[in-house]
Amino acid sequence: MTAVEYMELAIKLAASAIGRTSPNPLVGAVVVKNQRIIGMGAHLCAGKEHAEVNALNMAGIEAKGATMYVTLEPCNHYGKTPPCTERIIKEGISKVYVASLDPNPLVAGEGIKRLEAAGIEVEIGLLEHKEKQLNEVFHKFITKKEPFIILKTAMTLDGKIATRTNDSKWITNEASRNKVHQIRNQVDGIMVGVHTIIADNPILTTRLPEGGINPTRIILDSKLSIPESAQVLDMNVAPTIIACTEKRDKNKAIRLEKLGVKVIVCKEMENRIDIADCLKRLGEAGITSVLVEGGSQVHGSFLEAQKHDKFMVFIAPKIIGGESAITAFGGRGLELMSQAIQLDNIEIEQLDNDILITGYPKKQRKDR
Amino acid sequence: MTAVEYMELAIKLAASAIGRTSPNPLVGAVVVKNQRIIGMGAHLCAGKEHAEVNALNMAGIEAKGATMYVTLEPCNHYGKTPPCTERIIKEGISKVYVASLDPNPLVAGEGIKRLEAAGIEVEIGLLEHKEKQLNEVFHKFITKKEPFIILKTAMTLDGKIATRTNDSKWITNEASRNKVHQIRNQVDGIMVGVHTIIADNPILTTRLPEGGINPTRIILDSKLSIPESAQVLDMNVAPTIIACTEKRDKNKAIRLEKLGVKVIVCKEMENRIDIADCLKRLGEAGITSVLVEGGSQVHGSFLEAQKHDKFMVFIAPKIIGGESAITAFGGRGLELMSQAIQLDNIEIEQLDNDILITGYPKKQRKDR
Repeated sequence: MTAVEYMELAIKLAASAIGRTSPNPLVGAVVVKNQRIIGMGAHLCAGKEHAEVNALNMAGIEAKGATMYVTLEPCNHYGKTPPCTERIIKEGISKVYVASLDPNPLVAGEGIKRLEAAGIEVEIGLLEHKEKQLNEVFHKFITKKEPFIILKTAMTLDGKIATRTNDSKWITNEASRNKVHQIRNQVDGIMVGVHTIIADNPILTTRLPEGGINPTRIILDSKLSIPESAQVLDMNVAPTIIACTEKRDKNKAIRLEKLGVKVIVCKEMENRIDIADCLKRLGEAGITSVLVEGGSQVHGSFLEAQKHDKFMVFIAPKIIGGESAITAFGGRGLELMSQAIQLDNIEIEQLDNDILITGYPKKQRKDR
Repeated sequence: MTAVEYMELAIKLAASAIGRTSPNPLVGAVVVKNQRIIGMGAHLCAGKEHAEVNALNMAGIEAKGATMYVTLEPCNHYGKTPPCTERIIKEGISKVYVASLDPNPLVAGEGIKRLEAAGIEVEIGLLEHKEKQLNEVFHKFITKKEPFIILKTAMTLDGKIATRTNDSKWITNEASRNKVHQIRNQVDGIMVGVHTIIADNPILTTRLPEGGINPTRIILDSKLSIPESAQVLDMNVAPTIIACTEKRDKNKAIRLEKLGVKVIVCKEMENRIDIADCLKRLGEAGITSVLVEGGSQVHGSFLEAQKHDKFMVFIAPKIIGGESAITAFGGRGLELMSQAIQLDNIEIEQLDNDILITGYPKKQRKDR
């Protein structure tokens, strides 16, 4: 196996814990000696062993003189566990390949320096782009202290999420819906506007044949107009956060809090919740990633606030037409085509007859 | 080579004349004897030799006892050329594979009957689905006497063809635009609403690096409000048909006709051109296929009239948002999601960063 192949394996190991390590990054490690893997591991859960430690535990005394492939720079600080650098040095590893430097200001190249100071050869950047995509949530959260935002919509081929009579049942197929549950299983939070709660009363859980973890449900609801019988208020199922503004009904806020709901009061902007402020508060609450499932107005607000790290557009191959049918991304919209949010790293996936298009904004727009 | 491979070759030969045989079908033929191809041909232009004749001319006297693979049932009537069946019989072909029966009521199984009556073994249906897709225009036109309708749009990933300020420059990339010119090169007609003429003054020609044939330009313009300086009125470039209603300005109609424009007066429906009537008249004028390029209202009218044989949706990976941004398929739209036009035989093509989704309506809707 080549160095690239070992690192690919380390990335696969890391990916095996996707959705399970928040707020920590996904990390995988492989220890190789004499063309033979002698240890491998991943970081499986926040507070548990780091990937390097798991891999070194497996390698045991054979680690002396071996090469380590690790997807993220080893930590050099005492957190919930001791620094990985010390363990790597202690075991006598002679060379370390690192895919990405850790963007965490507590690490930030210090890990590499420590290893090199101990005489270990370090190579940085092998499959870095793959690591960065795998840990897109972590790289965003650790530097911006705000959740990574996925704007997801499910629309007809002509860009509509409901007919002119507001009928939306059903747009996408089972394979698409299953895919959505896979994503819910991997994010910290799932967000909808209160209109979606009022219209559909969804439970917003992860429903996969193999089971899954429910994300925190986050409802944008300026005035706390959520019906108290809403399914998302059942705290036995999953946690719920409701974001509101000063205009909230204070008594209702108290009643909701008694149910176990976390009510966060956000700044207001143009009579709506200030999305930037809301995300800051969600970051403070430890939410590192949010799947925003709409509707149209909520997506419009995120576009206005320029808060979007990833787009996932599920397209059902059907046409409904209608200029007053509900558009996937509503709100005010951009003025000129040249200001459009250009997407990059486009991926196209066929889900039976449906199509999922995933992309990342190329860069922030400057003018509006 | 197998029978399937010979028929595939015959279909490739047929396809080589795409856009060049209207109103005739695309047909290819291969003559095989002793595991060797001895003749091949295609129908290249209406009024010229049929595929069978070209292939038999190449085969010469060797054709006796050979097998013929032909994509469409050989004709049994005198048209611009004598019946192919007689020639096949005369040359002593012993077996004929036919992909599709000819839907033309003048042929309609008669060709097969004639061959069998002459003692020739006939097998029908080999790669029939491929032939039907290749000749989708012919199969529609010959049975309905109406052009095959391709509704084409070029939109953002969120289904918009212009921003809220009506800015639409530019949505798709060069590869997409080139693809559109390839399609223009293959259809009899290209249609837009007069609003597109007023807004953009397009010339609506085929512009390919390798050259191409210009389709007839068809403008939907109830009242003949087209500016007389419009580029599409230059008859030196390509023919133009303007469809209007009784509400037209008669003097202007005369002026347009003097320029060489064909003005067709159609029935009216809800203050607009009755699309069904318009298509009937276009069929009478020998237009077998129309690429409808929009805008939003024109596409809406075609949906209302349930006149759509194929959808081609070019998607640029960009988001503009906005509930008043112009939607790709406007008009009234369907009332319920369950009434949506379901597409089938979906094809996805990547054109650099753009995506082209092609599909065919599964069946006609019954309720509205």
